[in-house]
Amino acid sequence: MRSVVVQQPGHLEIAERPLPQPAPGEVRIRVKHAGICGSDVHIFHGHNPFAKYPRVIGHEFFGHIDAVGEGVDPARVGERVAGDPVVSCGHCYPCQIGRPNVCTELQVVGVHRDGGFSEAVVIPAGNAHRVPETIPDDRATMIEPFTIAANICSQLQPGPLDVALVYGAGPMGLTTIQALRGVYGVKTVIVADRIDERLEMARVNGADHTINNGRENLADWLTQHGVRPTLIVDAACHPSILPEAISLASPAGRIGIMGFSADPCTISQQGITSKELTIISSRLNSNRFPMVIDWMARGLIQPEKLITHSYPAEQVLEAMETFEKDQKQCCKVLLNF
Amino acid sequence: MRSVVVQQPGHLEIAERPLPQPAPGEVRIRVKHAGICGSDVHIFHGHNPFAKYPRVIGHEFFGHIDAVGEGVDPARVGERVAGDPVVSCGHCYPCQIGRPNVCTELQVVGVHRDGGFSEAVVIPAGNAHRVPETIPDDRATMIEPFTIAANICSQLQPGPLDVALVYGAGPMGLTTIQALRGVYGVKTVIVADRIDERLEMARVNGADHTINNGRENLADWLTQHGVRPTLIVDAACHPSILPEAISLASPAGRIGIMGFSADPCTISQQGITSKELTIISSRLNSNRFPMVIDWMARGLIQPEKLITHSYPAEQVLEAMETFEKDQKQCCKVLLNF
Repeated sequence: MRSVVVQQPGHLEIAERPLPQPAPGEVRIRVKHAGICGSDVHIFHGHNPFAKYPRVIGHEFFGHIDAVGEGVDPARVGERVAGDPVVSCGHCYPCQIGRPNVCTELQVVGVHRDGGFSEAVVIPAGNAHRVPETIPDDRATMIEPFTIAANICSQLQPGPLDVALVYGAGPMGLTTIQALRGVYGVKTVIVADRIDERLEMARVNGADHTINNGRENLADWLTQHGVRPTLIVDAACHPSILPEAISLASPAGRIGIMGFSADPCTISQQGITSKELTIISSRLNSNRFPMVIDWMARGLIQPEKLITHSYPAEQVLEAMETFEKDQKQCCKVLLNF
Repeated sequence: MRSVVVQQPGHLEIAERPLPQPAPGEVRIRVKHAGICGSDVHIFHGHNPFAKYPRVIGHEFFGHIDAVGEGVDPARVGERVAGDPVVSCGHCYPCQIGRPNVCTELQVVGVHRDGGFSEAVVIPAGNAHRVPETIPDDRATMIEPFTIAANICSQLQPGPLDVALVYGAGPMGLTTIQALRGVYGVKTVIVADRIDERLEMARVNGADHTINNGRENLADWLTQHGVRPTLIVDAACHPSILPEAISLASPAGRIGIMGFSADPCTISQQGITSKELTIISSRLNSNRFPMVIDWMARGLIQPEKLITHSYPAEQVLEAMETFEKDQKQCCKVLLNF
């Protein structure tokens, strides 16, 4: 089979690899589409501390099951599935409380083990989630990106009284905006980004107000409009955002962060405690595939709005370059196998 | 009536004041006991930015209703009650979502308005919570301090799988330890403090392990014992604790802070997000009086263990000095009116 392999940082190729056989409890998926994420680019550039090389990358993928390992119902062969990249031990403390995404022995498909930028990938049977016929193949590839939004929103518990502020209108921001608007029905969605074209995408995806915070002072804008955000999502993942979010948040507000920066970030506890703020963090997803499949099946979200580009798998380098460099026009890029 | 009045920072006296009449919707409480809290001492010393002078301090108080304002059931006269110091507007965002403790127009009894170190105090009728006959007067005075523990625990949601680490074995730490042990039944309670006598109190109040972190390295102790705390409460309220807590916490751990320090506190977002930690903060209490009264009525907590001293109200200065300076022997001091 053909696979997209990062042989070592900076060196990516389409390689011929033996078709993997599913181990007991696993299924093999014939991949139809796979989506490019920032973390694929990070592994390519050697910026992901967890990746071991050579590695078949890709953790957003859709296809059909074409083989099952021992102990898996053979009737699953042929099933249309989206793959959850979170592989967990099932018995550590995080697993016991339903947080496999921070399992102490976490294995992420496409990071710690070979992933979905390949004609076939093997994953545990429980990670392959059946997709209803009403959800087309390309949209089903978007399930994983929406689980990122589902994971942070499940913790933030948005509601109709919330005024949400989302930093960043890239893929993570846009899926979050769609969820806040279409699923949770928050009162207002305000989005800040430094690229006008992304702010236009934010409006298309449900933002009520957009602010270019490269040009305009966000705090001033909020003051002028008499708005105190009750729910803030940092989908831009810059370490400067948390301190600003703490100062802008309403009393009893919740702030969600997804950034992995190791840079120091200075806050004051008075700013947090005086308003009794809650700061949650979100990594990957904890069993959110069924939730997102339900959202799509019910038409609460529009994954097609985010798919801006599609390439044959052979053009993976061009696809990744587009994803990385064309921040004005590009949101989600699919590879076709 | 006699009241303990801080006329201005550093100047406290027992003053004769007119007996207040309850306004519509209010009740007047004849105070029997009142407890001294660190924030009373802060107002005395001029370290509370919210206090206006002159001020009758005191927000932990118990007594009986002896007069009611217009619109309040006269049958409440004679009722034994504990007073919730949180007075809120009822219509702002925090109030609408059940968080009156961070109401945008918050008035705290004993801080923003006259408090319970007095022969009588008036508060809204809804803030006066009936105490069952089975709870003696002195223990009922401890309801408010336990609401601080109830408030942080309600957000942290401790459970039988949790290994809890509590920083600080003062009154806030000890009430939290009692709640974690007696109410939530966490697996293990570990307590760190720098005073051996307080650690002894922590053991009496339910701690399984205590560490003098002035002498011993806490991280080393946890490593040696193979322990990763899943739930951490900073009841010492020093800004250095949050960064340490982030590094010590288990994946999927929760950290609760109560500190009001304006000092800078440096963290890294990677430390939070990689383990998907949640940081909650807790201020005062949001409608936790019924919960704590229920805990006491069911014998889940032992407030009597925390009452180390009791003084006639006339000796308030001596009482406050004991509370402030005798950290080895003193936990909770009651004033008797």
